[in-house]
Amino acid sequence: MTANGYDYDLVVIGSGPAGQKGAMGAAKLRKKVAVVDHRWAVGKSSVGSGTISSKTLREAVLSRLRQQIFSSRTDCKNDPIGMADLTARVETVVKSDSKAIRSQLQRHQVDMVDGVGSFADSHTLQIQTEQGSRQVTAENFLIAVGTRPARSDRIHLDGQRIFDSDRLLSLHQLPRELIIVGAGLIGIEYASLLAALDVKVTLVDQRSVLLGFVDREIVDNLCSQLQQRGVTFRLKEKVVECGIDPKEDRVCAQLESGECIRGESLLYTVGRQGNADRLNLASAGLNVLDGGKLEVNEQFRTSVPNIYAAGDVIGFPVEDLYYGSISMEQGRLASCNMFGFPAVSRPQVFPYAIYGIPEISMVGQTEEALRAKQIPYEVGIARSGESAKGQILGDNQGFLKLLFNPDSLKILGVHIIGENAAEIVHTGQAAISFGGTIEYFRDTVFNYPTLAEAYKAAALDGLRRVGLEL
Amino acid sequence: MTANGYDYDLVVIGSGPAGQKGAMGAAKLRKKVAVVDHRWAVGKSSVGSGTISSKTLREAVLSRLRQQIFSSRTDCKNDPIGMADLTARVETVVKSDSKAIRSQLQRHQVDMVDGVGSFADSHTLQIQTEQGSRQVTAENFLIAVGTRPARSDRIHLDGQRIFDSDRLLSLHQLPRELIIVGAGLIGIEYASLLAALDVKVTLVDQRSVLLGFVDREIVDNLCSQLQQRGVTFRLKEKVVECGIDPKEDRVCAQLESGECIRGESLLYTVGRQGNADRLNLASAGLNVLDGGKLEVNEQFRTSVPNIYAAGDVIGFPVEDLYYGSISMEQGRLASCNMFGFPAVSRPQVFPYAIYGIPEISMVGQTEEALRAKQIPYEVGIARSGESAKGQILGDNQGFLKLLFNPDSLKILGVHIIGENAAEIVHTGQAAISFGGTIEYFRDTVFNYPTLAEAYKAAALDGLRRVGLEL
Repeated sequence: MTANGYDYDLVVIGSGPAGQKGAMGAAKLRKKVAVVDHRWAVGKSSVGSGTISSKTLREAVLSRLRQQIFSSRTDCKNDPIGMADLTARVETVVKSDSKAIRSQLQRHQVDMVDGVGSFADSHTLQIQTEQGSRQVTAENFLIAVGTRPARSDRIHLDGQRIFDSDRLLSLHQLPRELIIVGAGLIGIEYASLLAALDVKVTLVDQRSVLLGFVDREIVDNLCSQLQQRGVTFRLKEKVVECGIDPKEDRVCAQLESGECIRGESLLYTVGRQGNADRLNLASAGLNVLDGGKLEVNEQFRTSVPNIYAAGDVIGFPVEDLYYGSISMEQGRLASCNMFGFPAVSRPQVFPYAIYGIPEISMVGQTEEALRAKQIPYEVGIARSGESAKGQILGDNQGFLKLLFNPDSLKILGVHIIGENAAEIVHTGQAAISFGGTIEYFRDTVFNYPTLAEAYKAAALDGLRRVGLEL
Repeated sequence: MTANGYDYDLVVIGSGPAGQKGAMGAAKLRKKVAVVDHRWAVGKSSVGSGTISSKTLREAVLSRLRQQIFSSRTDCKNDPIGMADLTARVETVVKSDSKAIRSQLQRHQVDMVDGVGSFADSHTLQIQTEQGSRQVTAENFLIAVGTRPARSDRIHLDGQRIFDSDRLLSLHQLPRELIIVGAGLIGIEYASLLAALDVKVTLVDQRSVLLGFVDREIVDNLCSQLQQRGVTFRLKEKVVECGIDPKEDRVCAQLESGECIRGESLLYTVGRQGNADRLNLASAGLNVLDGGKLEVNEQFRTSVPNIYAAGDVIGFPVEDLYYGSISMEQGRLASCNMFGFPAVSRPQVFPYAIYGIPEISMVGQTEEALRAKQIPYEVGIARSGESAKGQILGDNQGFLKLLFNPDSLKILGVHIIGENAAEIVHTGQAAISFGGTIEYFRDTVFNYPTLAEAYKAAALDGLRRVGLEL
């Protein structure tokens, strides 16, 4: 029992990135914390179907591509590859990640409660477990229940030929052809991953511009690399219905324009539905938005003062994007806020990554945003094909772009496409965070050979453009 | 002809990292520059036998290891691998890197002169080419001729069974067993690379402590990982003679202690000899040190005022270490100095990398150095096995260690062992360069999953140790 007479100072619902960090933050403040999740017993939900699995799969694909680049031998590399070959490592990694998270929570004496939560009132959660039902009370709640793939009445998923992203990894066989409906983050990541395995991918999206928050040259470069791998783009096309044409035994995606795109299988990944609709929040006096999401203020507090929410369930300000990294930050901030602990957050230097093949990452502003705000800027670019490490890795299409103020030389943005972009961006992030100029990169010695040397080459290019070559 | 009546403002001798950057630096100052190298015609010397080749080979080995981690299949991964399989990509990469360097020099109108240089006087170089001999005069010279493996009269290299590192890549077959004499940077990099290919390696060195400039925990971790791969260490043993025992047809390394280590082949990599002895520098009035190296002041100027030297030929202050990155910086600084252009250099934030398997990198101070200087410090550690990306990549032995001032929390050093250490260290380097504290890492959002997240985990660990957990 806590000082205020509750079972817990904080009960977190959901054990994904936001839930974990929210719980840890409160535990470090010596609060009594529990995390309720109905998948504690069988492994992490966010892991089983989400980030860790798809990123492990991606590394498996990358390892295969890399091997093709470096091997002179043809005996292995052209073998057809099965789903089992690719997902062999997923289960191991998911288990070990789940174990690491549990042991971290345990070390901080966070209770892990297995069950499905449902609010009785704003301080009471009814938890349905296999053993029966119990109630826990808490001074505060953090809702971090995430999302699920959105469904549409007119898109019937059979889980075999027409499926969503949660199902993809459990397919027995790689399809030879795949229609992907929805070119958001998930659609693009899977399109590039499957195209790298020689699956013939058709990517359909109703938007005309993909990844609107990303630098235009990078999106063009990505699309061109995907096209080189055989991806067909069908933009400005809305899929209104999907089914299997029994005559041809082909999947058919019916477009609003009247045409029908046919293929072997279809991945439907248009939008995500929040899971807040499953918590009986009306009993707590909290209104759930359409789409199962929750509204919060800048403190991550809902309209019920002791109920906070973080992670995917509160949606994302930009497009249809979900990021574990941002969720973690939100979870941490929510628990700092609820216990009155001052927390620093700098959303203007949040990095974003797209784990496609190639990888993309960015921090700071885009050219598009700077132009819109009429902020003057200059550009410095380094192409990976001109660096020793890029050549070694066979990455000759990537680039790193620095945006900077032409007078003060302060760095405004870093945009990278190519190998390990999501790692390398953090060096630019540090330079921006400390208010650095591109002269920092000119004057810095980088390990040789590295991809990070691109910062220096891009800075030299930028300085040349503003007439400060040496 | 230049304003002062010479053919060139600067003639650079040697086209390796120091020579390239020295030439580029002067060219950007609009100076008339030539680079003399006897290997322009056949490809870059520093590339053919050096960094690019060995790093490409290393990526080939890594790609093979990675594939073993990610594949469930056993049909390919246990095949014996030949040297040709590994070096397939080396030639392509070397050629393309060489082409990139040439085109960069060309763009800056640097003359590339093919031939062997020899000083006639302090302003005149005699160049022997295939077409005959010619003289060029220059106001300044930059000597960047690098080093070659040191030889010993008692170690007869036959190039087949007993060889140096320049020869290793041209072997037709991988040995099954290899004695490596000399556990410097090159010895350790090759030991780890070959051990990863299941070559049985014995590493012999007369020193008792390896890589003295590297964090002790990291060296211990490296040695333990190498031992797990079957490397045998024979430290405090001096090899005095090598030969092939005709009776057994085995290589025999005779130790000073009397014992003889036997094996199939032997890589001799004890020390490097400077190439300055081949330039007839006496005619220019310049004294060459024993070992073919040159002495320079902090401006990289020799005792002859218009002759500068940079790169491996001036040796390295710490141990027996040669770094392309440092050579590049020295070349750049030398040409800035000779033309009176102010250049910033911050040797205290130079990064160092060891491209072994695992990879090691560091920036800033070591615990050993801090203790010697009686500077108080605290430690924060993150283990890669506890991070999602580390688990995905199967790197469960690496770690990242932050050293920081326990009062100000300023970062003093970053030490990393594990995947992509040489890339990731630059984020720590930026934070140190800008005078950052470990709170920077606590408050920074990292892409998820990345190895760079280790900075945050290490910062949280460090804060916990000084009682500032959240």
